[in-house]
Amino acid sequence: MGVTDSAHSHRIAALQDRLAAFAAARDWGQYHTPKNLAAALNVEAGELLEIFQWLTPELSATVMEDSESAARVEDEIADVLAYLLQLCTVLGVDPLAALDAKIDRNEERFPVQ
Amino acid sequence: MGVTDSAHSHRIAALQDRLAAFAAARDWGQYHTPKNLAAALNVEAGELLEIFQWLTPELSATVMEDSESAARVEDEIADVLAYLLQLCTVLGVDPLAALDAKIDRNEERFPVQ
Amino acid sequence: MGVTDSAHSHRIAALQDRLAAFAAARDWGQYHTPKNLAAALNVEAGELLEIFQWLTPELSATVMEDSESAARVEDEIADVLAYLLQLCTVLGVDPLAALDAKIDRNEERFPVQ
Amino acid sequence: MGVTDSAHSHRIAALQDRLAAFAAARDWGQYHTPKNLAAALNVEAGELLEIFQWLTPELSATVMEDSESAARVEDEIADVLAYLLQLCTVLGVDPLAALDAKIDRNEERFPVQ
Repeated sequence: MGVTDSAHSHRIAALQDRLAAFAAARDWGQYHTPKNLAAALNVEAGELLEIFQWLTPELSATVMEDSESAARVEDEIADVLAYLLQLCTVLGVDPLAALDAKIDRNEERFPVQ
Repeated sequence: MGVTDSAHSHRIAALQDRLAAFAAARDWGQYHTPKNLAAALNVEAGELLEIFQWLTPELSATVMEDSESAARVEDEIADVLAYLLQLCTVLGVDPLAALDAKIDRNEERFPVQ
Repeated sequence: MGVTDSAHSHRIAALQDRLAAFAAARDWGQYHTPKNLAAALNVEAGELLEIFQWLTPELSATVMEDSESAARVEDEIADVLAYLLQLCTVLGVDPLAALDAKIDRNEERFPVQ
Repeated sequence: MGVTDSAHSHRIAALQDRLAAFAAARDWGQYHTPKNLAAALNVEAGELLEIFQWLTPELSATVMEDSESAARVEDEIADVLAYLLQLCTVLGVDPLAALDAKIDRNEERFPVQ
């Protein structure tokens, strides 16, 4: 393994730590109940959807071609991920393990024809 | 670096590959326009919020104590992450880099007192 | 004015009264904080969107042709309206006056070319 | 029946007509597929929830006491109602009848103890 792999290791945990430190430095932890974080996740998911709401399916595939639109998409994706990771932190959920387990279940639920 | 670090490396990319293979095997890629994935992300965020909607802030912090409720939380977190990662795949967005950049901006926007 | 008009009068207020009586009879008023009702509105809006999430724009216009799908649409529209009206009741907002005022503002904001 | 009742009659239908005329004058009808309207409804429901996301249950009950906050609440309620009514128009759904029927079903589903 090289330096690149090392740099990529544990990046989710590092982001969770960074988000926790950010909130702690501003005394925002008091607002970060699981319920509030789940609400904030919905708000940000709505802001992400707002970018696409009036677009045809075809146009929705071109949003990254315009730099202003691309920046907005990345910003909203970051916000969704931020609240999802903070929710995982306060609940003690490992999001990657949860997703791996979910795909396992879906492979049984939706067998390939 | 040891085996553990190696196993943790690139886990996001591995999940994105697994999700893409899952969709391809079922010919579901045709449905995965950015717009549809952003809509699906909202639907799953709503299902996650449903778990908390009538709970007090205090009760919302106990959802992992009941195994049935904990399983439901993990299931919905997995669904939100699945659609977020699939959206990142089709748009070519690196979610972890996007979040790092967003925290950088927020540190300037909300300076610690 | 005839009986038909009379029967249509104040139907929003009558529905708000009916929803309030339904909640009171089950002692559910304690859960109906504005915040919880706004969360429930998001959850139901997500369930409504779920019906359309994978449909093309064209197919989304045919959902009422299938009786099962039509019933589901009506059910989710009813849920969204129920929480919107209950939110208006607890906040003392007149939803129809709010919408009339909003259209007035939008007519100034988006003048016809 | 008096003038007041008359003025209140058919107000929902009048708002639906007003929204349809507003969209037609701007050639926006082309964007108003059921799917897009359901997405827009989610976006606006998210903006309404944003007002409450960090508030305690108690504080969420005071949002109408501040005039700026009250105006924002009324604005977002209007937006949610606007998209719900436009969705009902394009689908041919009577929202008040749908809600009455839903309350009927809920009375059977959740009998009073």
